[in-house]
Amino acid sequence: MSLHDPYNDQNIFAKILRGEMPCAKVYEDGGTLVIMDAFPQSRGHCLIIPRNASTNLLGVSPKDIGRLFGTVQRVTVAVEKALKPDGIVVTQFNGAPAGQTVFHTHVHVIPRYADVALGAHASEMADMNELTELATLIRNELEK
Amino acid sequence: MSLHDPYNDQNIFAKILRGEMPCAKVYEDGGTLVIMDAFPQSRGHCLIIPRNASTNLLGVSPKDIGRLFGTVQRVTVAVEKALKPDGIVVTQFNGAPAGQTVFHTHVHVIPRYADVALGAHASEMADMNELTELATLIRNELEK
Repeated sequence: MSLHDPYNDQNIFAKILRGEMPCAKVYEDGGTLVIMDAFPQSRGHCLIIPRNASTNLLGVSPKDIGRLFGTVQRVTVAVEKALKPDGIVVTQFNGAPAGQTVFHTHVHVIPRYADVALGAHASEMADMNELTELATLIRNELEK
Repeated sequence: MSLHDPYNDQNIFAKILRGEMPCAKVYEDGGTLVIMDAFPQSRGHCLIIPRNASTNLLGVSPKDIGRLFGTVQRVTVAVEKALKPDGIVVTQFNGAPAGQTVFHTHVHVIPRYADVALGAHASEMADMNELTELATLIRNELEK
């Protein structure tokens, strides 16, 4: 994959956005979908996915940037309130050499807990019941 | 440092914003300042710093989010054009346990080159002449 490869709508986030694949949904609005990462690097790892198709950040329309990162900030605040982590990493990978594994733009919100090492990305699939519980905790804060 | 610690205006980015410390400046506008990271993790590592004071992303006003990440996207595009990396990581650390070392909100744009490992953050200070040259290359793309 290069940074300029065309978008392929068979990626897993495109399928989730179309309702063809399940997810642990946290929140959605007209511009963004927020789900729990099924291969979390820490407890509460969320993904913010813009609805409009783009392979990576280079292809997101400027109009969509404010909406995408507005949701990222709201989710960051909600994760902090819901889970009380000691820190939060917000990160976004463009291109396979940067760590991107799904080629639909997405932003990670990854809580960090003191003295707990991060898991490797995509190393172990989470329990769906636990993800659904976390999604509810975070959604409740988003809706306050 | 906790995620809720008050802002301390003696941090190095506050000093750079006030002109009290030097930097390799890439770009500035009314809302943001873009500089080369003086301790780069890779060639072309930039920082996007919102002018308004906030300790971390939790404290950035929603109004400033669009402007901050609008500049982040423009810098990401410019870095790609100027330096042709194979990937780009966009990342933002909140709280010391998440890797934050300067407690004024900032976003990292870190080019990745295939087969080149990332340097550790803040491990080695870069040559200022080299940073100034990189800043010029990136600024030229921003101004096109």
